[in-house]
Amino acid sequence: MHKETLFGRLAICIVIAALFWLLPVPEGIDPNATHLLGIFVATILAIVLKVMPTGAVALLGLTATILTRTLTFEAAFATFNNNVVWLVVAAFFIARGFTKTGLGSRIAYLFVRMLGKKTLGLSYGLLVTEVILSPAIPSSTARAGGVVFPILDNLSRSFGSAPDEGTARRMGSFLTMVAAQATAITGAMFMTAMAPNPLIVQFAGEQGIQFTWASWAIAASAPCILALALVPLVIYKLYPPAVKNTPHAAEFANQKLAEMGKMKTSEKTMLGTFVVLVALWIFGDTFGISSTTTALLGLCFLLAVGVLSWKDILGEQGAWDTLFWFAALVSMASNLSSFGVVQWAGVHVSGVVGALSWPVALLLVAILYFYLHYFFASQLAHVVSMYAVFLTILLSVGAPPMPTALLLGFFSSLFGALTHYASGPSAIFYGSKYVPITTWWKLSLVVSVINIAIFIFVGGAWWKVLGLW
Amino acid sequence: MHKETLFGRLAICIVIAALFWLLPVPEGIDPNATHLLGIFVATILAIVLKVMPTGAVALLGLTATILTRTLTFEAAFATFNNNVVWLVVAAFFIARGFTKTGLGSRIAYLFVRMLGKKTLGLSYGLLVTEVILSPAIPSSTARAGGVVFPILDNLSRSFGSAPDEGTARRMGSFLTMVAAQATAITGAMFMTAMAPNPLIVQFAGEQGIQFTWASWAIAASAPCILALALVPLVIYKLYPPAVKNTPHAAEFANQKLAEMGKMKTSEKTMLGTFVVLVALWIFGDTFGISSTTTALLGLCFLLAVGVLSWKDILGEQGAWDTLFWFAALVSMASNLSSFGVVQWAGVHVSGVVGALSWPVALLLVAILYFYLHYFFASQLAHVVSMYAVFLTILLSVGAPPMPTALLLGFFSSLFGALTHYASGPSAIFYGSKYVPITTWWKLSLVVSVINIAIFIFVGGAWWKVLGLW
Repeated sequence: MHKETLFGRLAICIVIAALFWLLPVPEGIDPNATHLLGIFVATILAIVLKVMPTGAVALLGLTATILTRTLTFEAAFATFNNNVVWLVVAAFFIARGFTKTGLGSRIAYLFVRMLGKKTLGLSYGLLVTEVILSPAIPSSTARAGGVVFPILDNLSRSFGSAPDEGTARRMGSFLTMVAAQATAITGAMFMTAMAPNPLIVQFAGEQGIQFTWASWAIAASAPCILALALVPLVIYKLYPPAVKNTPHAAEFANQKLAEMGKMKTSEKTMLGTFVVLVALWIFGDTFGISSTTTALLGLCFLLAVGVLSWKDILGEQGAWDTLFWFAALVSMASNLSSFGVVQWAGVHVSGVVGALSWPVALLLVAILYFYLHYFFASQLAHVVSMYAVFLTILLSVGAPPMPTALLLGFFSSLFGALTHYASGPSAIFYGSKYVPITTWWKLSLVVSVINIAIFIFVGGAWWKVLGLW
Repeated sequence: MHKETLFGRLAICIVIAALFWLLPVPEGIDPNATHLLGIFVATILAIVLKVMPTGAVALLGLTATILTRTLTFEAAFATFNNNVVWLVVAAFFIARGFTKTGLGSRIAYLFVRMLGKKTLGLSYGLLVTEVILSPAIPSSTARAGGVVFPILDNLSRSFGSAPDEGTARRMGSFLTMVAAQATAITGAMFMTAMAPNPLIVQFAGEQGIQFTWASWAIAASAPCILALALVPLVIYKLYPPAVKNTPHAAEFANQKLAEMGKMKTSEKTMLGTFVVLVALWIFGDTFGISSTTTALLGLCFLLAVGVLSWKDILGEQGAWDTLFWFAALVSMASNLSSFGVVQWAGVHVSGVVGALSWPVALLLVAILYFYLHYFFASQLAHVVSMYAVFLTILLSVGAPPMPTALLLGFFSSLFGALTHYASGPSAIFYGSKYVPITTWWKLSLVVSVINIAIFIFVGGAWWKVLGLW
């Protein structure tokens, strides 16, 4: 983009923030609250407009809060010791072990060999790989773009199904569409499967709704598994691949596995660490070991035995990036909440839906929350700007806290495949040119309806069974 | 080093930490305090033994405090929102602008052209470059290794004075020795001239001794300028270069400057930002703009105008590294202090020097603090493990707070050239093979005596004039 355009957009964001200094301050609200809201709105807008990378925008926003004395330095930077922030950062570092050792690819090839006789089976092979990797790879972009996509692309091309080869492309197209949706669904499965998830935990926690790693995973399990089982079938029906039998895929995987040879010590160590890690995430709470402590412990172990080096850690730019923008945005959002702005907005907006019974309100508001993602190119920006407010609105009309927090939380992953720009992984999958835009939008709309139905009805029933409401 | 050796060393550190669990707990001290002390001692030992890079060791130490329930997660990570930590991190990012735009080299060539007719003048040219860059380059390794050393090396080689060319090497050797000492002295000049300085500010602050950026710079000015003026002369006398006239150095610099052409816009912007930054560091307190806010503001500006990109920031591994080890070590040290361990150690050790009058005690203890650096390969490890305790000891025998904190603080920079392994810059300078070990040790010992005398007597007098005691 032209430098001038970016300056123009930055200027617009600054002017918008400044306008909040002129607003009348509502009764009982600290004037700093409206100033913070202004900076927050401008920050989110700058992220949406892609004025600069998210981290840079977050730094500008945070510095603005300090410089205008809206927040003290300590309040602005308080979230850098937040444990959910460090959970996701540590998991990012651990994820490096999957790519560094080659374990991630090995797992993918194993499932392709096992399930890849038919194209449909192949799509499930990629999907299962995603599920297995998701507990410890919180960057869905790294998981989809770094492990699954290269294998998908390789396979499709080896079947004469490169993006530029006419109708034959539709094997690659089918797999791409399934993988994009699978990434969105697996993102919802675990607290550590997607960077914005711990944000959701944080925001829900501020409303008194507590999740552990295990309780999240259990609540997500039934609707996620159902969605993962159904979605490939639906896409297979609506958008059938030209190549339906892929007897060579297993051979291809076999050959790749032969090239990789036996598991290296580093791969075995990584696998063992991963298993213990997930076990501790599930059962750690009973011994009083939190998920963050678990992640730190896993990371220390990988460093001590040399699977990862400190150089790997320092070079893992995605993690440092996440540390920064994550902590900065959580800080702004949490401070808004403690200033009472979120409550205030929730109460005022809920006047509109206040006349409705909570099930109708929940349905309408949650669906609105979902489809507003047509306007976002970042799950993060969407979650940061809307999750807390939408949750507050629904709680104020009497919606049951736990399922409401979960539903909005899971939707925050699911809408990641809604458009070709909806998330990092979708941008990567779309960028491969297997799937035309119109196809993407149509199929994703259908899938979104199915996902919403599954999570509301099956999810709702499951959470009732679990006694969450 | 062999992996087995490292494992052995790591095991020793862990055993040493574990021994503290068996120690009797002194009356009135929380048992967690002795546990933390054990982990802290093991962490410092692991840094000294180079078991792993400092950051990795710090992570292991911090995780150990959480896992053993010595500290809560919040207490362990509390310092990640410490403003001195972010001051040094932001300054690290800003420093990238000097190398990226080429402004750092241009400044060096300008001074070489101005002062480089004789070898002695040349050495002052490099020294002045260091002084000018030091306020905004807190990595003395980046300053010395990234800007000054390459130019020094280039110049020496162009005069037939490469390390392997007999006695002619002694121009390069002379310049190297001066540059190493100059780096150590300039590190003391500004709060932002060396990474451990903000640590010193933090530790002194915990004893109620407050420094601002400006008050540090003023206190450092007189002794630092005197030392910078004298030290090259002393080295010139004791270790004269074989080549004493360097008429071609100016030409060489001229040619380099011609190659660089006119100042680019990015260089001008960097220069302007730098000037404003230093001005705000000096005068900002009067407008209530802290040094950290100033640094963040400068960084935001460089990002907004595109001198730095977010990619540069994420790739600046030294800064992220510093953020981590810095915050982790400050956390351990601060928690030790709030557990009362530092006070306890100070009071018990000061029994030994308690019979002495404070001036004698100050002299002995400060000199001991200085020469203990023969046992350290890291200024950081030395400061973290000893600064607070030594300061406490001296305060308890009645030494005046401000000059004592300053003296120990400045010594923490000065001892950075004591040996060829005393600091990052010394390791780089020594690594160039211009100076043999014995020469390095002898000359540095002489210079250290001069520095100590200047800082105690001239420094002491200057701080009296300033009314600091």
